[in-house]
Amino acid sequence: MSKKIGRQTLKLAKPVSIAASASVAGKKEGEGPLKRCFDYISQDSYFDQSTWEKAESQMLKRCFSLCCDKAGIAPSQLDFIFSGDLLNQCVSSAFAMKDSGSPYFGLYGACSTMVESLSLAAMCIDGGFGDLACAVTGSHFCSAERQYRFPLEYGGQRPPTSQWTVTGAGAAILSSRGHGPYITHITPGIIVDAGIKDANSMGSAMAPAAFETIKRHFEDTGRDLSYYDAVFTGDLGAMGHDILQKLMADEGVDLGARYMDCGVLIYDLSTQDVHCGGSGCGCCASVLCGHILKGLEKGVWNRVLVAATGALMSPLSCQQGGSIPGICHAVAIEREV
Amino acid sequence: MSKKIGRQTLKLAKPVSIAASASVAGKKEGEGPLKRCFDYISQDSYFDQSTWEKAESQMLKRCFSLCCDKAGIAPSQLDFIFSGDLLNQCVSSAFAMKDSGSPYFGLYGACSTMVESLSLAAMCIDGGFGDLACAVTGSHFCSAERQYRFPLEYGGQRPPTSQWTVTGAGAAILSSRGHGPYITHITPGIIVDAGIKDANSMGSAMAPAAFETIKRHFEDTGRDLSYYDAVFTGDLGAMGHDILQKLMADEGVDLGARYMDCGVLIYDLSTQDVHCGGSGCGCCASVLCGHILKGLEKGVWNRVLVAATGALMSPLSCQQGGSIPGICHAVAIEREV
Repeated sequence: MSKKIGRQTLKLAKPVSIAASASVAGKKEGEGPLKRCFDYISQDSYFDQSTWEKAESQMLKRCFSLCCDKAGIAPSQLDFIFSGDLLNQCVSSAFAMKDSGSPYFGLYGACSTMVESLSLAAMCIDGGFGDLACAVTGSHFCSAERQYRFPLEYGGQRPPTSQWTVTGAGAAILSSRGHGPYITHITPGIIVDAGIKDANSMGSAMAPAAFETIKRHFEDTGRDLSYYDAVFTGDLGAMGHDILQKLMADEGVDLGARYMDCGVLIYDLSTQDVHCGGSGCGCCASVLCGHILKGLEKGVWNRVLVAATGALMSPLSCQQGGSIPGICHAVAIEREV
Repeated sequence: MSKKIGRQTLKLAKPVSIAASASVAGKKEGEGPLKRCFDYISQDSYFDQSTWEKAESQMLKRCFSLCCDKAGIAPSQLDFIFSGDLLNQCVSSAFAMKDSGSPYFGLYGACSTMVESLSLAAMCIDGGFGDLACAVTGSHFCSAERQYRFPLEYGGQRPPTSQWTVTGAGAAILSSRGHGPYITHITPGIIVDAGIKDANSMGSAMAPAAFETIKRHFEDTGRDLSYYDAVFTGDLGAMGHDILQKLMADEGVDLGARYMDCGVLIYDLSTQDVHCGGSGCGCCASVLCGHILKGLEKGVWNRVLVAATGALMSPLSCQQGGSIPGICHAVAIEREV
């Protein structure tokens, strides 16, 4: 029996429970509008480590531990871990998970990694391959800046379209048993290359991918916007948010107030000097695991669609004149089924 | 019904068919002992592109196209593509697949990516999420050298324990229907950190992971070495090959002549100046899709275990004094079930 509905969407045979989740945020994120949502806010950007990269890894590790604790399991009880990050060769994930004692699948989905990992974890459980799987990812402003742009000490100017890489992480443990919220549908993304070449304008590079995936999700499921209490994108930022609204409006869909972007929610754009808002794997991850899942628990929303976006580029691919293809993976999360 | 047997191995409910495979190799690999196995050997290291990174992407694209042609399908008919590579942010995969029109899951498994992608593709099909999935990966000597070590123009000396990144790619299309060879069992890897810190000694960093996964596969399945006609590791090279033999001998298992390493097979170690042999995602990928699957088709072997190894490091993690954790994912491929 195929679980595929339409071209691109997967309907889980038995919805997979999000048994536990945890979020960790940096100091700046902990001063933003979502400060009450995070499980742990670090005042120390170095997370007690000697380098930014080790700090990022330590942050992921702490988030993962918190999540295991909340689920009441030891890390080695997990059937699978799906994890990835933005660092070259995804070392912050690998080092964070190296002592977990569980089967590990490394991913690279750029900033879409939270939903990519959730999707594959849910598919593994629904496919009957295990009972417990963890999806975990994050990003760190300081390691991302020096890898993708300039060392912080350089003090480079940022154009108005740029976004601020979130220092934050999120982890979720999925279970074949347990109560809601549940992952019910998955719409994995197809790469969309809109030809954008400006590495300081990620929102415009990723919005077309979000548009394609969300549109496809509605077509495949027969649902429309009114089915969901809220639709979130991962890190389009203020400009990408507006581009997506415009693209949907051209299709006759007014996204309205129920559409929000994690990158816009996590900072106060008027006072925190982040230009277009948050970005990075940690943006969608910390907002999903901090804000969105807690809102589902409290009944603020009953059904949400989370569409995480990623820009599939490297500094080198941009230097060589390449475009910035985007991807967007979406999951439907519902309080009850 | 759980498909998990033992701690770590997955037994597919219905074995997944490897409907088609394709391999592409560079000039040096095309002059080695396996030269008759590859579907396409390029005499042009640049694959008609302007940079090594674009060449790597073009090579992956060609391999993917060849594989789709052999399977008799258009790329957009695939339910999923699983792909990754060694370049920062996995750009060679992303750019190679960006026009495929199929849902894309990006992976980072270092040199274990061929088996990681095959595993997830097989699980998606067995889980009922689709009928056709492609696993594709590769590596390029020139792009890997300048990213991980030195620009080629520098002419750096290589120590005797070093390996040579294979310029090559492999792609396999898995199907819910069709004849053998089949993927029957999957043993996903747990990260093993043996504390090795020498980035020029990857074989010793990865051999302990291969040991753990292969041993676990035998324990979980109740099979022993005699069940398989051949056991292949991905890219341990000559030294890693010997370390694995020693580790298994300490457990009372004589791997003997039926154990081979793709990195040892792909070059003539005595004449091709590659020191310990081949490495990189393209090593296991091109040897699996070129040599091993063709051998299964011809009946050279009926049952093989392919254990692909990866070193989870980056140049920066090594510079910061980090160890080199290893991982090894294994799949059982059988001609008949």
